Amino acid sequence: MKIASVKEIPSEKVDMDGAKDCQVKLAVTARDGAPNFAMRIFEVSAGGHTPLHRHPYEHEIFVMEGQGTVWRDGKEVTIKPGDVLYIPADEQHQFKNASNQAFKFMCLIPAKFQKC
Amino acid sequence: MKIASVKEIPSEKVDMDGAKDCQVKLAVTARDGAPNFAMRIFEVSAGGHTPLHRHPYEHEIFVMEGQGTVWRDGKEVTIKPGDVLYIPADEQHQFKNASNQAFKFMCLIPAKFQKC
Repeated sequence: MKIASVKEIPSEKVDMDGAKDCQVKLAVTARDGAPNFAMRIFEVSAGGHTPLHRHPYEHEIFVMEGQGTVWRDGKEVTIKPGDVLYIPADEQHQFKNASNQAFKFMCLIPAKFQKC
Repeated sequence: MKIASVKEIPSEKVDMDGAKDCQVKLAVTARDGAPNFAMRIFEVSAGGHTPLHRHPYEHEIFVMEGQGTVWRDGKEVTIKPGDVLYIPADEQHQFKNASNQAFKFMCLIPAKFQKC
């Protein structure tokens, strides 16, 4: 059994086309032996965003801190701590920080699409 | 895309042998179309606990509120908000509330083992 504080997990820069001022912590992945899905925690700084993109796998998301938006069907929808999201495979989406404070959310994906 | 506040998701009593004063919110499951894994949010009241058990699938866990313990290798280990846990398949475990306030944690499992 792994037990770790998120604070102790190192942050890595999100190095994807279309990402700006994003970092990620790999909380639970195949490196821990997790065979089916991976838990990542993203932090988007003020003014930052994830790519506007789509891909052939789903996201399950929990908003942890700050205030942000998610791009849904061409509109930016406000999301806040305590919100959960399900984004089906192949649905276009983007997350933006909508405040001056860090925007943090957990994002889980199937393990076979986790690159780290 | 589903967006929901955890506050709006109904709670259901955890009706398992060995569970005491536990409720669960089904945040993202196959009912939402999620094909691979399910996100559930548990609330254990003061004095409550989940079963001491093992099963043939893993847990990925994030501690959200309160203070609790997890049974690991015969000892109760304190866990707190911001902790992440990975419990491999077939490893015995139990969660207990260790305070007078609600103890809340997110627990994800492979979709094929989600009953609701």
